[in-house]
Amino acid sequence: MLFDPRSVAVVGASENPQKWGYWLATGALTGRGRRSVHLVNRRGGRLRGVPFLPSLGALPGPTEHVVVAVPPGQVHGTVVEGLAAGARCFTVITSGGATADEERELAALITGHGARLLGPNCMGVVDTCSELRLSWGDFPTGDVGLVSQSGNLALEIGRLLARSGQGFSRFVSLGNQRDIDAADAIEALIAHEPTRVIAAYVEDFRDGRRLVGVLTAARQAGKPVLLMTVGRSEASGRAAASHTGALITARATVAAACREAGALLLDSAGELVDTAVALLSPALPAGPKVAVAGDSGGQGALAADALAVHGLSVPPLPPAVSDILAACLPPGSVPGNPVDLAGAGEADLANYARVADALLFGSGADAVLLTGYFGDYATANPAQVAHECAVARRMAESARASGATLVVHTMARDTPALAVLREQGIPVLERIEHASAALANALRWTTLVPRPAIELPNPAGDAIPDGGYETMRALLRSYGLTFPKTAFVTTADEAARSARRIGYPLVLKAMGLAHKTEAGGVALDLRDEGALRTAFARMRSATGVAGYAVEAMTRPPHAVELIAGVRRDPAFGLVAMAGIGGTTAELLGDTALALAPLTDEGARELLLSLRHAPLLTGWRGAPAVDLDAAAAAIAALARSAVEHPELSEIEINPLLVHPGGAVALDAHGVLAG
Amino acid sequence: MLFDPRSVAVVGASENPQKWGYWLATGALTGRGRRSVHLVNRRGGRLRGVPFLPSLGALPGPTEHVVVAVPPGQVHGTVVEGLAAGARCFTVITSGGATADEERELAALITGHGARLLGPNCMGVVDTCSELRLSWGDFPTGDVGLVSQSGNLALEIGRLLARSGQGFSRFVSLGNQRDIDAADAIEALIAHEPTRVIAAYVEDFRDGRRLVGVLTAARQAGKPVLLMTVGRSEASGRAAASHTGALITARATVAAACREAGALLLDSAGELVDTAVALLSPALPAGPKVAVAGDSGGQGALAADALAVHGLSVPPLPPAVSDILAACLPPGSVPGNPVDLAGAGEADLANYARVADALLFGSGADAVLLTGYFGDYATANPAQVAHECAVARRMAESARASGATLVVHTMARDTPALAVLREQGIPVLERIEHASAALANALRWTTLVPRPAIELPNPAGDAIPDGGYETMRALLRSYGLTFPKTAFVTTADEAARSARRIGYPLVLKAMGLAHKTEAGGVALDLRDEGALRTAFARMRSATGVAGYAVEAMTRPPHAVELIAGVRRDPAFGLVAMAGIGGTTAELLGDTALALAPLTDEGARELLLSLRHAPLLTGWRGAPAVDLDAAAAAIAALARSAVEHPELSEIEINPLLVHPGGAVALDAHGVLAG
Repeated sequence: MLFDPRSVAVVGASENPQKWGYWLATGALTGRGRRSVHLVNRRGGRLRGVPFLPSLGALPGPTEHVVVAVPPGQVHGTVVEGLAAGARCFTVITSGGATADEERELAALITGHGARLLGPNCMGVVDTCSELRLSWGDFPTGDVGLVSQSGNLALEIGRLLARSGQGFSRFVSLGNQRDIDAADAIEALIAHEPTRVIAAYVEDFRDGRRLVGVLTAARQAGKPVLLMTVGRSEASGRAAASHTGALITARATVAAACREAGALLLDSAGELVDTAVALLSPALPAGPKVAVAGDSGGQGALAADALAVHGLSVPPLPPAVSDILAACLPPGSVPGNPVDLAGAGEADLANYARVADALLFGSGADAVLLTGYFGDYATANPAQVAHECAVARRMAESARASGATLVVHTMARDTPALAVLREQGIPVLERIEHASAALANALRWTTLVPRPAIELPNPAGDAIPDGGYETMRALLRSYGLTFPKTAFVTTADEAARSARRIGYPLVLKAMGLAHKTEAGGVALDLRDEGALRTAFARMRSATGVAGYAVEAMTRPPHAVELIAGVRRDPAFGLVAMAGIGGTTAELLGDTALALAPLTDEGARELLLSLRHAPLLTGWRGAPAVDLDAAAAAIAALARSAVEHPELSEIEINPLLVHPGGAVALDAHGVLAG
Repeated sequence: MLFDPRSVAVVGASENPQKWGYWLATGALTGRGRRSVHLVNRRGGRLRGVPFLPSLGALPGPTEHVVVAVPPGQVHGTVVEGLAAGARCFTVITSGGATADEERELAALITGHGARLLGPNCMGVVDTCSELRLSWGDFPTGDVGLVSQSGNLALEIGRLLARSGQGFSRFVSLGNQRDIDAADAIEALIAHEPTRVIAAYVEDFRDGRRLVGVLTAARQAGKPVLLMTVGRSEASGRAAASHTGALITARATVAAACREAGALLLDSAGELVDTAVALLSPALPAGPKVAVAGDSGGQGALAADALAVHGLSVPPLPPAVSDILAACLPPGSVPGNPVDLAGAGEADLANYARVADALLFGSGADAVLLTGYFGDYATANPAQVAHECAVARRMAESARASGATLVVHTMARDTPALAVLREQGIPVLERIEHASAALANALRWTTLVPRPAIELPNPAGDAIPDGGYETMRALLRSYGLTFPKTAFVTTADEAARSARRIGYPLVLKAMGLAHKTEAGGVALDLRDEGALRTAFARMRSATGVAGYAVEAMTRPPHAVELIAGVRRDPAFGLVAMAGIGGTTAELLGDTALALAPLTDEGARELLLSLRHAPLLTGWRGAPAVDLDAAAAAIAALARSAVEHPELSEIEINPLLVHPGGAVALDAHGVLAG
């Protein structure tokens, strides 16, 4: 109904090319070979021989898909008329005027009749396979399905795709997502055979967990999803009620969700298009090894550097390949990787194909990157056009036959040889950094393994009364976490009595302070009662709090301080965070996120994804920490939050992990508002 | 002589368009209105009516500039003939065949006659201002002077410049730099008035300190130098004989040299061209504040995110500007930053100019970034072309008048309105990430302050015999560095005797081991003679070394471990390194480099440039370390290396800096091979 309706009506059709109603109507008319198209305008008119009908009621029969491009005040009436006329789907372009409540009512009216709503405030829908063009702007035809909350960004992506020889299978403008949302639209693209790569720009994630499920399904179906969102710059604007709060940003949460679902989160329209084109190659890279061939040593070396930025390698060539290459290159050339063609291409264009063949079939590289001048020989010498195109075709065929990925960076633009490469699905890029990033992203996609669906456990029976250390300690101990021996006291005498039971050395902590250490609320390594009483008196006068914890001093050798937390994201639900702790925690911001709950194995991977992971696995001769215990503690922390929806945040800081286990030295929670 | 000779001769001229000699000759002939041009080929021939002469000896008069494009075996003879004919400058295109020694002899022959050599193995020289085109390929005319060791990269940069509406003032292909080198060529471009931005690609830096001097002169002349080199990916291939060796890479050294000289080190031809175009704007940004105007909320937000990646900010607008904007935007719009035009541009193109004016003159922003659709209205509706061009012109004029920088990101390409913007010097970029990076690079250039010329002190009289701790400790103490009390011993009894003098607790260290800690060659916190003797016995059996140091245990509170070193780079000479030390030093790689020697103030800036600098200045309530002492120690270390050219490396690891001073706990050196 949405993408290939038997009939379409455009309400608000216009004869004026300055109006949306004109473009929607002319777009709709391009599908007249396939479906009936009706144009409605109460003031009458005519476009390309099709007269405007006065209302949906005047249509000769039922209409499946109604496009609404009338002023805001007329939307509701149009929908009522459409439903009466049997419409199954409304695309509401109209924006402004309506309140969120009115929009929700409109959606309820439509879905209450079993119909669907796209929008309102959307740019329409296009299916280039079914000749459905219900939008403004040019949408080139191709293999990319796009779901976007920004119409202009969709146009930009379309321009960039067209320049890369690609285009859209479908385009869905989400608008305000009052019914059909990003997850619905992506689901439709997964099922759409001609859509080979899915691109999505989403600002408002709604039910993030459902989206994760859909992204996972896409990965399992082998369809890459390339997601863009905003919010890289908003992190600093977010209030930091806790370390966890500051460390879990909206952007990082989306990144974690994408990683777990097997989708790629990208930063710009250009990166998205380059990556889409790379993913549409005849073959995707199976690993990071790249053979580079360049027309000059400089361009080859710059390519190797650009690849290295993305973790791709340019390994030495097998001797047999070097021998083959030597036969193509000028006398005296020593073929390495990068291969410097050193004029061999200029001397005979066929050398490009010979070199590409040698590298594609013999080098063991996962990808071959050609950088430099190829594609432009016919510009200076038009007599070469057929030859250059033939070489391009041969290279593309070799790439397809070899199973290795071929990527071409060229200083040329829009030449016949480049068109041949693009027709054959070979990515052609104008900048070496784009070629490198696209290849790296394509490889990254192949390595993403979506994690199994997350089962949310049932909430626990008894609600947590507060987020204080005493309560959190009890909660987390019930989930199996280890804390030092502790007594909660209010007087110095009580502290001294507890101390005798616990044993020195001790730690004294003031309760209920956000930044204990800075406020003078922590005294470490108290070795006798005198020290304890002195510390108690000083701490009470510094902090004035009523409650204190007397705690066994825990200093296991080879310990690493972690910070671990869980936070509730409005769209994606609970998100677990693990990071390197200690005084440098915030300075470095070395943290990793995962959707909660997570398995012990998931927690282990989370820890191993930290930049500082080598500190955990035996750095410079130190023994490894007990990673199993560390992972179990983080998984248990996440489970505690999942089973206690009354908590919006919970944090252990520090979580001391060491070769003999993991011990939590402090914890606090934040109750949901 | 090189750039605007009164006469040119091309030796090896050809009638065959497949040959270099053809392109050089046709290029040379384009300058015939300005100078005499002779073509030489011993086999005769004729091009565009100009007959080939048989030899340089047959020329009617002296020739200033001789281009040599003959087979390798004929180069020497051609140069001899040229010198006899009074040539003052040779550009030798010919490559291959000649050995390095032969090339040096050729250079000596030429310079011995007071003439100059460009090349050999170069692509030639172009001066678009003096109609000198002695190269192959298209070199569009513009304001960028390029010096390159790769001809193909020069062509690529030329293509990208042309697409940006720019081109070259001059191009110098360096080839093997046997006489004229990068520093010479850049010097010539500084003096060349029409060259407004200098670009350079250098693989082989020769006299790096001289180049630094030339780059500094360029910065002082207000001419940006944009440098590219290779070697980002070679770091891992370098043998790491010491921490310092591993931490000072060739690339990082070039980066330090550029920073100190006020040049920008860039990574790709694309980034270079975008940055050049931004630097050619009518006005450079005076700070990081950017006002963004986009056709949609999505593109505006993506722009803000892209700017934030580069440290640029998108601050709120003054209320007065919001009021002006509100009058241009659709009813109900609330103008923020980014400004969402929300159809205002579509409704009336003049709104682009109104919004740009409001932001350029009233927002207090240092730059205005327009992102989205502008530049493409006339494509869909050719009737708008004049209006769109007029709006473009008005925006460019406003930018010029306002003193703020205007940058345009557009989804259009090559339209009349974009041509107007480019003619007016407004950077127009196809990708938002390019616009952001170019703006950030332009700002970065404005903030670079070249450091004053470095005076190299005289070498000290007495040479250092070895790089062992005892020797290095004595050397560095003579430069004012502080070490703990130490005795160098060989037996347990000697150790015990020294220990009584120094006082417990003590450290025992085995001498002469590269990785002491891992080899069991360090024992810390020995509290009495028993512990010392046990440690001594265990260490001797573990390491088998003959010499040991008994050292006072130094554990000042709030200390931060640094690593500091100096290393000799083949091109740039001594390079000083400071970094965060301790077990995580290599893991994090948080190091900074500076050319040695450096002042105390320079060493202080070096320390403050570390990512971990907050640890030094009072992190989370801790007192600041004694930065003056830390800086003085690093400056003294660098001076010790400069005055002892017999050392190729010297390193202090760790250098313990604390609120009361700086103390070196270990040091070693490497003698120059």
